[in-house]
Amino acid sequence: METLIGEGKTKQVFSYEDNLVLLKFKDSITAGDGARLDILSGKGVLNAQTSALFFRLLERNNIKTHYVGMFDDRTMIARKLKMIPVEVVLRNIATGSIVKRLPIKEGEVFNPPIIEFFLKDDSRHDPMLNYSHLEYFKLMSRKDAEEIESIMLKANEVMKDAVSKAGLVLYDFKLEFGKNEKNELIVGDEISLDSMRVREPNTNRILDKDLYRKGADLNTVKSAYEEFLSRIEKVI
Amino acid sequence: METLIGEGKTKQVFSYEDNLVLLKFKDSITAGDGARLDILSGKGVLNAQTSALFFRLLERNNIKTHYVGMFDDRTMIARKLKMIPVEVVLRNIATGSIVKRLPIKEGEVFNPPIIEFFLKDDSRHDPMLNYSHLEYFKLMSRKDAEEIESIMLKANEVMKDAVSKAGLVLYDFKLEFGKNEKNELIVGDEISLDSMRVREPNTNRILDKDLYRKGADLNTVKSAYEEFLSRIEKVI
Repeated sequence: METLIGEGKTKQVFSYEDNLVLLKFKDSITAGDGARLDILSGKGVLNAQTSALFFRLLERNNIKTHYVGMFDDRTMIARKLKMIPVEVVLRNIATGSIVKRLPIKEGEVFNPPIIEFFLKDDSRHDPMLNYSHLEYFKLMSRKDAEEIESIMLKANEVMKDAVSKAGLVLYDFKLEFGKNEKNELIVGDEISLDSMRVREPNTNRILDKDLYRKGADLNTVKSAYEEFLSRIEKVI
Repeated sequence: METLIGEGKTKQVFSYEDNLVLLKFKDSITAGDGARLDILSGKGVLNAQTSALFFRLLERNNIKTHYVGMFDDRTMIARKLKMIPVEVVLRNIATGSIVKRLPIKEGEVFNPPIIEFFLKDDSRHDPMLNYSHLEYFKLMSRKDAEEIESIMLKANEVMKDAVSKAGLVLYDFKLEFGKNEKNELIVGDEISLDSMRVREPNTNRILDKDLYRKGADLNTVKSAYEEFLSRIEKVI
């Protein structure tokens, strides 16, 4: 492999050919803004494969992503982007931080979905940003924010549909965006069970990283990630 | 007086003539979302008088407010509005909650100003809302939010100018909005040292409710409120 040029909690970035990088998915799983960390053998491969499926799905639906192809089973070849350190969250059904912050009950349905921007800043627990903050921090213009919201809605339609075909419900998901050399907004990072919440209808059985957040044992987490990948690869 | 139809931490609302109400400013001063409460004799009159000056200033500059006139020295005659339970904050200079939430240093200058919307909900410590939340809660449309932002910027220009003529600096302020029977957005509530931060240039001496928040004795708080009213009434 080439030179390591960046490393996060769950991925390493290596330089590759011109305008491309390699994204290697690690086996680490974390929660609480990095306060908890475990190694879940095989998770890197599962998240790389799940992400690849969703990136291809978005690409087929004319949403631009950084995805180029796979280098090996846990390493993605991706277009090099100038990443914006913001997590963009779209919520179809209420769970997680929003039911703690706002007078919203677990399970409330958002139609249209709620979209939120959070600064990637573990030490401040990823504070929410509005357009005014995004512009002040020079993270993105109001026009960029509006374009991202429209990409989020479009991605939601195709992702929700795929998850539903797998017999599951997409509660919410997070995307991260970057800009290419033409200054276009491109979906980057990953799309996996670390970054979306997926539940079984009726039983509300959790298949995503909330299992880990809520203290399930690592085998249960891994089984859920495996089950999701196997269900989703049949329908995407 | 007429029937009491509403009461908050610092004001009582009474029914009055058609489409009008009386707003009686109490002597209470509170902090920490109501966790601290004191009685500061004379504060009601000071805040009523200060608010009247600022409402007249906005009206003269073609910003619609609920202000009609004074009923007595602590009681305002105001147009009846359907109030939106949202605090809209405009910040020229960083202080207060924003330097705790975000990677922003005390004293940083915002140009253009930062505008934020907060849900009035003491039990949740007034959480910040974005356009998506404002629409979901049916508090206001995106168009309303944008109109409010433009009113905030216009109000800031005239208020900053008045405060500056009084030899002081307007760090930030909060307005609340309501709708009249024609569905127009109107500035309501109060405009006082409880809802704006005013500092002396160079020394950074505090004249506003931060004195109380930071534990100054009540006489110091009252002197500052008196001094501000006396300085501002000479220039508005």
